[in-house]
Amino acid sequence: MNFKVPRGTQDLLPGVTEKWQKVEEIIRELCHLYRYPEIRTPIFESTELYTRSVGDTTDIVQKEMYTFKDRGDRSLTLRPEGTAGVVRSYVEHKMFGQPDQPIKLSYLGPMFRYERQQAGRYRQFVQFGVEAIGSKDPAIDAEVISLAMNIYSSVGLQDVKLVINSLGDQEVRANHREALVNHFKPHIDEFCQDCQSRLEKNPLRILDCKVDHGHPLMATAPALTDYLNEESANYFNKVKQYLDVLGISYEVDPNLVRGLDYYNHTAFEIMSTSKGFGSITTLCGGGRYNGLVEEIGGPESPGIGFGMSIERLLLALEAEGKELDIEDQLDMYIVAMDEDSKLKAVELASSFRAKGISTELDYTDRKMKAQMKSADRKQATWVIVLGETELVEQQVAVKHMATGDQEKVPFFDLVEYLTKQKQKQMEEK
Amino acid sequence: MNFKVPRGTQDLLPGVTEKWQKVEEIIRELCHLYRYPEIRTPIFESTELYTRSVGDTTDIVQKEMYTFKDRGDRSLTLRPEGTAGVVRSYVEHKMFGQPDQPIKLSYLGPMFRYERQQAGRYRQFVQFGVEAIGSKDPAIDAEVISLAMNIYSSVGLQDVKLVINSLGDQEVRANHREALVNHFKPHIDEFCQDCQSRLEKNPLRILDCKVDHGHPLMATAPALTDYLNEESANYFNKVKQYLDVLGISYEVDPNLVRGLDYYNHTAFEIMSTSKGFGSITTLCGGGRYNGLVEEIGGPESPGIGFGMSIERLLLALEAEGKELDIEDQLDMYIVAMDEDSKLKAVELASSFRAKGISTELDYTDRKMKAQMKSADRKQATWVIVLGETELVEQQVAVKHMATGDQEKVPFFDLVEYLTKQKQKQMEEK
Repeated sequence: MNFKVPRGTQDLLPGVTEKWQKVEEIIRELCHLYRYPEIRTPIFESTELYTRSVGDTTDIVQKEMYTFKDRGDRSLTLRPEGTAGVVRSYVEHKMFGQPDQPIKLSYLGPMFRYERQQAGRYRQFVQFGVEAIGSKDPAIDAEVISLAMNIYSSVGLQDVKLVINSLGDQEVRANHREALVNHFKPHIDEFCQDCQSRLEKNPLRILDCKVDHGHPLMATAPALTDYLNEESANYFNKVKQYLDVLGISYEVDPNLVRGLDYYNHTAFEIMSTSKGFGSITTLCGGGRYNGLVEEIGGPESPGIGFGMSIERLLLALEAEGKELDIEDQLDMYIVAMDEDSKLKAVELASSFRAKGISTELDYTDRKMKAQMKSADRKQATWVIVLGETELVEQQVAVKHMATGDQEKVPFFDLVEYLTKQKQKQMEEK
Repeated sequence: MNFKVPRGTQDLLPGVTEKWQKVEEIIRELCHLYRYPEIRTPIFESTELYTRSVGDTTDIVQKEMYTFKDRGDRSLTLRPEGTAGVVRSYVEHKMFGQPDQPIKLSYLGPMFRYERQQAGRYRQFVQFGVEAIGSKDPAIDAEVISLAMNIYSSVGLQDVKLVINSLGDQEVRANHREALVNHFKPHIDEFCQDCQSRLEKNPLRILDCKVDHGHPLMATAPALTDYLNEESANYFNKVKQYLDVLGISYEVDPNLVRGLDYYNHTAFEIMSTSKGFGSITTLCGGGRYNGLVEEIGGPESPGIGFGMSIERLLLALEAEGKELDIEDQLDMYIVAMDEDSKLKAVELASSFRAKGISTELDYTDRKMKAQMKSADRKQATWVIVLGETELVEQQVAVKHMATGDQEKVPFFDLVEYLTKQKQKQMEEK
């Protein structure tokens, strides 16, 4: 019987996971500096949470959710995005009652969408995201955007571009919606089935269509920006002013709409502009979602957030030819020549590791030469060879693999010797 | 509409997630020292992988799996444990062909079992585990156990106990099985339904029964240890010898069997002996699984591993009254008095954070007094108050909250001043 990784998913193996760990470490540190502590919500939620929040006319809800019944006949869905669960938790734990609003939160974990397979898209992908709930200050919009941009610059990405737009408030969207219907209706039969049904249900979605992207009516569609009322326009201006203060450059794209129903006011995307990058260039998307908390059963609590795919962040790094600075050095390889030496090797390995010296040894009874080769492949900094003589003399030659230098060190002194050597090495870097 | 976290799952909120991060950090460092790099396999696998590996007579497969069909009609199961996925990946990526065996791997992530709700058990729980595949050296059994023990001591647990047993090889298990059937058969009608069906399918499972645990025949059941052949006994002795060398004390419990079918030879559990701990005292379980790789389609590759619940590790810490050493200090709170000051506050916050100074400010247009209270609640180390005067003078008083000391610092010098102060503070610790 041969088993394969489920279609559309992947294994992350050693050599790759170190990059993930590094990115996560950078993100964790930035969340600490920006004060977005982590929240961890379950991998699945009740299905209705997503139909209610993401929106039941969206592609995600209509085509891409992993929905199933548990043994208690409850309909559950593997989370397709992170915001709904966080907002559910905000309401359930009555965080709106805490004295310091907004509540700032971050999350990182797997999300699931049953999508057609293509490069850069997986059915299980990892998303990092933040939410700031309980403030409608344009400065928090800028902070959220700034955190996202800072993550990309901190991992070393240079070719990124911020695109922003305002989706306005309720009034704006109603007027714009009417204009859109009037614009598309006369020619709607030239559009795909999905767009035809979107026309009445949610015409804004048409602008987001992957099939009819090239239709000439797309370019001439009425832009939301032209319908902004004074309040929405002022809000958008303030956001831009804060971005200017932060030295973050941006493009305004009046056609930027996001693929989820709950956004209003600020919407943004961060894209890779690297030539090496594939056709899907969006690294991060987010926006403001005033009204979502009420939809999920809480009191009025305006919010904003973003989600970014870690897979795409790593693809973008690759496209730019950037390497993360990963430290995973093997300090010591212990070669053991016989059974007694092996006992000593096990003991020494344990004492080295206890002092922060990473250590490896052989567990397949190989000859000395094969063990030495292994030490080489694993690029150990030092090697010691334990045999009868060493056990009798209670000392061993520590060989520095890069230089070939050797130094005899008594067993009882080994840990201290290696600790000092390692410290010296780190200072030299 | 009110939504709740799915039954049997939980939200981990700020204040708690910091503990998780700390535990994960400790584990990550130990995996680096022991050379168990991380592997990440998908959250779900094909259902058959688990019926094949975990065993179709086990409670897990029979009652506790989250199984569902995807939109392509494939039967998938949310992983109930970590080993099967890792072994699947080992075979699929032909890791058995790599020159350095065993392949040592670690994983950390959510697992899913549909269990009855009780304290310390969740339907979604986080498991850390390691696997060493490709060696039948008793020294690697000891290494794996040593890593688990080291994790507990590194987080600060003291009241833990290692229990080991040998389940022997194929021959041993066949003989023992026969003895078990003979032992229980005459009185099997006094046992639960499950045990009755276990008698023929897998009598070893009876010893593991949660219902009939108190039946007198349990205590007198033939112990596997009495059936060990010479090879198995030698192997077990060697493992114990290595544990002795490592200074790890243990109890041998002949009745220790694990809840999964694939184990043989070494089996072990680590339990909390803390009085404050609940009825479920097992923190970690593991063992050797020679034969599992073949079962999943690979060549003969003996393996060993363990899995530990992070939830229980944290419960055990609580039971012992131990606190993790968590650093999450807010360095600076910026109070802004008006709109212009707010722009400056946003700018300064960004420059502080860029230099590793964690910073917070107000995003709800509160008065100065309310902002000061917020700084207090958040236990900021320093506060600065920006108003008209500060903007004109281009300087601000930096107030150290704990001492009340103030010092006037020009804007252009602020970052350097705070960086130095912070360094001094860290050196004093």
